[in-house]
Amino acid sequence: MKPLQRERTFTWEDPASSATKALQLSGLDFLQAIANGEIAVPPILKTLDISVGSPQNGGITFSFYPQEFHYNPIGMVHGGVISTILDSAMGCTLHATLPAGTGYTTVELKVNFLKAVSIKNGLLTATGRVIQSGSRIALTEAQLTGADGAIYAHATSTCLIIKRDLSLA
Amino acid sequence: MKPLQRERTFTWEDPASSATKALQLSGLDFLQAIANGEIAVPPILKTLDISVGSPQNGGITFSFYPQEFHYNPIGMVHGGVISTILDSAMGCTLHATLPAGTGYTTVELKVNFLKAVSIKNGLLTATGRVIQSGSRIALTEAQLTGADGAIYAHATSTCLIIKRDLSLA
Amino acid sequence: MKPLQRERTFTWEDPASSATKALQLSGLDFLQAIANGEIAVPPILKTLDISVGSPQNGGITFSFYPQEFHYNPIGMVHGGVISTILDSAMGCTLHATLPAGTGYTTVELKVNFLKAVSIKNGLLTATGRVIQSGSRIALTEAQLTGADGAIYAHATSTCLIIKRDLSLA
Amino acid sequence: MKPLQRERTFTWEDPASSATKALQLSGLDFLQAIANGEIAVPPILKTLDISVGSPQNGGITFSFYPQEFHYNPIGMVHGGVISTILDSAMGCTLHATLPAGTGYTTVELKVNFLKAVSIKNGLLTATGRVIQSGSRIALTEAQLTGADGAIYAHATSTCLIIKRDLSLA
Repeated sequence: MKPLQRERTFTWEDPASSATKALQLSGLDFLQAIANGEIAVPPILKTLDISVGSPQNGGITFSFYPQEFHYNPIGMVHGGVISTILDSAMGCTLHATLPAGTGYTTVELKVNFLKAVSIKNGLLTATGRVIQSGSRIALTEAQLTGADGAIYAHATSTCLIIKRDLSLA
Repeated sequence: MKPLQRERTFTWEDPASSATKALQLSGLDFLQAIANGEIAVPPILKTLDISVGSPQNGGITFSFYPQEFHYNPIGMVHGGVISTILDSAMGCTLHATLPAGTGYTTVELKVNFLKAVSIKNGLLTATGRVIQSGSRIALTEAQLTGADGAIYAHATSTCLIIKRDLSLA
Repeated sequence: MKPLQRERTFTWEDPASSATKALQLSGLDFLQAIANGEIAVPPILKTLDISVGSPQNGGITFSFYPQEFHYNPIGMVHGGVISTILDSAMGCTLHATLPAGTGYTTVELKVNFLKAVSIKNGLLTATGRVIQSGSRIALTEAQLTGADGAIYAHATSTCLIIKRDLSLA
Repeated sequence: MKPLQRERTFTWEDPASSATKALQLSGLDFLQAIANGEIAVPPILKTLDISVGSPQNGGITFSFYPQEFHYNPIGMVHGGVISTILDSAMGCTLHATLPAGTGYTTVELKVNFLKAVSIKNGLLTATGRVIQSGSRIALTEAQLTGADGAIYAHATSTCLIIKRDLSLA
């Protein structure tokens, strides 16, 4: 007997408007506007059902409940989902420190997967931290932790800081 | 005016049956059965609309067309999507070399993002390669390339090879 | 005129005896014996003039004064020297947590170089920390800091934990 | 009985003159001048007894014979020595592609240690390759191989490319 098919429907908003605002606002204002619902949540977060926290404490947190549509072929959450949430936490935590007109791009991402993640784990939260930020390069880290404090994954990321020409925006 | 909402519906199959077969088949037979449609495609590939190629040439390739639901807030494909396809290409290329009863787990993943990816890029393909595989540890790499041969991202990954007790499966 | 030649002479002890003791002692006892001078300091530390601290507080620290013989062709301490001290701090901090008969091997090392290091920097100290240690894999990190608290480099490392057969030692 | 002390004396030349020439020459000319003996070999290579090959084929190779003064406390070549030679091979291979007035700095280095290295291994050679080089960021890789073709270590490195103001040199 063939296994039952599962189905999911999700929605997202045109990301073009948020891309424009990312150039005009400081990182903190941009992220606050996403948390407030004034700027559309990035589509990838809707696709993977990841929630973004409010930037009120400096660092930005992201969280998700592991679900079957996150799974790899051996019944665990795919490492790419874990990489996505950790990358988001690191990038946005850095972004929150940058003034308007300054952007960043992730140059490299390194993730260590410490424990298998499945539906049984419940809510998992990624918390980013800036280790060091210079004029051109920043180093960030993030951890994915469970409600019990266990660390499921750890990541570091190198970002390139880019001063954009606002007159073109 | 609020931007128009976009909507997408996708389906996947219960991953429990594929997890059981992953223990019973050699890696190559398991991946061939996924390519043939005899074993369900992993849910994460349906979620992100990534296609898996046939393992006929040893290395396993994965490909995708960048779409808006892959996007980060600044109008580009999120690095997590790129990490997912590269991780899949590396893991499955290693898996294809392992006999029945031997599994693996990804210990760490390192991705360098070399070019921004957007809808304009068209089909992108991830191709894995095993750099070295020992009795306990394997090192793999993968590249994400466009139809024009440009490299959009490069990754390496360390995997732990695990001999499973088949009598328990 | 050719630049003046510089010369340095250093000594070390046969590492064979310390390798044997590494199998017989707990990691903490082994490192304490090196700090006390009962077991020979590893040759590489004599070669690079790196000092090892006492393991009294759990984490093991290493320190060095940048010197000209550490330099790359552009007048800075070579990244390999920084990698060596960070790798030592991470490996020994992990080793200090392992019982007799249990060893480890470094699978991969990732270093971010945050500030150029030269003779002007004075004493630099590498401090390791175990992020997580399981039955087979451990993840560690280390920082290289100056007397002023500035971070010159940051590293993470994945180690494989190996139970050795003591009857063969 | 205490183990016999070993002693080694080595020399190097003032690195200040090579640092100045690094700004004035193209990378290829600079490396050719080091290979020819016209510019002093970097001190760290003398310290670790690593040899630099001629850049005649584009990629720069470095080689060394494992020696006891490279050892860690458990009787193997320390991973930091392996990191040093791989970092050198990657950095110089990139440097050889850069025009006069353009320098680089290593942002991050990632090394996978694949086989233990000891005196028994004989000559080992590190060969670098540029995976991709853009206007600001380059990604490189290198392998450490034995005379028998076995791969002992693999590395990748991200470099920041820096245009220097030659009028200040």
